[in-house]
Amino acid sequence: MKRIVGSPGTWGGMALRLSQCVFAAASSLAMCSAFGFSNYSAYFYMNLVLIVQLLWSLGLACQDIFCLRNKKDLHAPGFLFFIVFIDWVMAIFMFAGFCASASLTIFFMKDMNFCTEYSRLACSQFTLSVTLAFITWLLQAASSFSGFWLLVSFF
Amino acid sequence: MKRIVGSPGTWGGMALRLSQCVFAAASSLAMCSAFGFSNYSAYFYMNLVLIVQLLWSLGLACQDIFCLRNKKDLHAPGFLFFIVFIDWVMAIFMFAGFCASASLTIFFMKDMNFCTEYSRLACSQFTLSVTLAFITWLLQAASSFSGFWLLVSFF
Repeated sequence: MKRIVGSPGTWGGMALRLSQCVFAAASSLAMCSAFGFSNYSAYFYMNLVLIVQLLWSLGLACQDIFCLRNKKDLHAPGFLFFIVFIDWVMAIFMFAGFCASASLTIFFMKDMNFCTEYSRLACSQFTLSVTLAFITWLLQAASSFSGFWLLVSFF
Repeated sequence: MKRIVGSPGTWGGMALRLSQCVFAAASSLAMCSAFGFSNYSAYFYMNLVLIVQLLWSLGLACQDIFCLRNKKDLHAPGFLFFIVFIDWVMAIFMFAGFCASASLTIFFMKDMNFCTEYSRLACSQFTLSVTLAFITWLLQAASSFSGFWLLVSFF
């Protein structure tokens, strides 16, 4: 069994998944605490992706813990391919959500100065949520790459 | 010499690069014809990325044409790695620009109905430009993937 840091069924992989859960949950909470976020398509979409990301990472974290406790090998190519594929799709969706929300936040804060004009607009929560979503994406990208390298090393 | 459709130094690769040039130029022109696009960070950023994409694709198209005419082999691993690396970076920047602009366009058109209220806002040009940028990104992703597969097949 090959060992690549951060791949499924390793301690590093479990740590990555758990941090993804924490950051996705924190980002989603920051977004939900912002008044009227669901009026904006970009924020609504990012929140949706964050919740899916949270569930996916939580599931895989549980699986990693189970495999590490029972010393099972997760590295069957078919199963690994499935995980890596979904990981890549999630990473792309997460990046799209982050870019869309970041663009809207920059529009509010810099282009139009809406944040200083309208105090009801929860700009600080938006900024916090976008920053946390970016960290979630970085962690997700790390998981995707390590899984992909493991898959490539089979061939 | 391995032949992977769309990789550097092949007819498919040249066709991909030329179509990237055409779509990037068309998207950039559509954006530049929209009044006041540079007031919005997302559109300004996408236009900048489109111009860099245009120059990069044009350079590689010229190189492909030169190699095909003189029957030179482009597949030295070091050089190929450089091209694939820049290709991936360009693909990521292009996707970020597309997502940011699409999010802002959806905000104008759907969330706020600014397009019907303010007739000076060039929503149709924005939509056209974003659609063309998406096609450019798809073509750039195809180039990146075929180059990457060629690189993986060396190891």
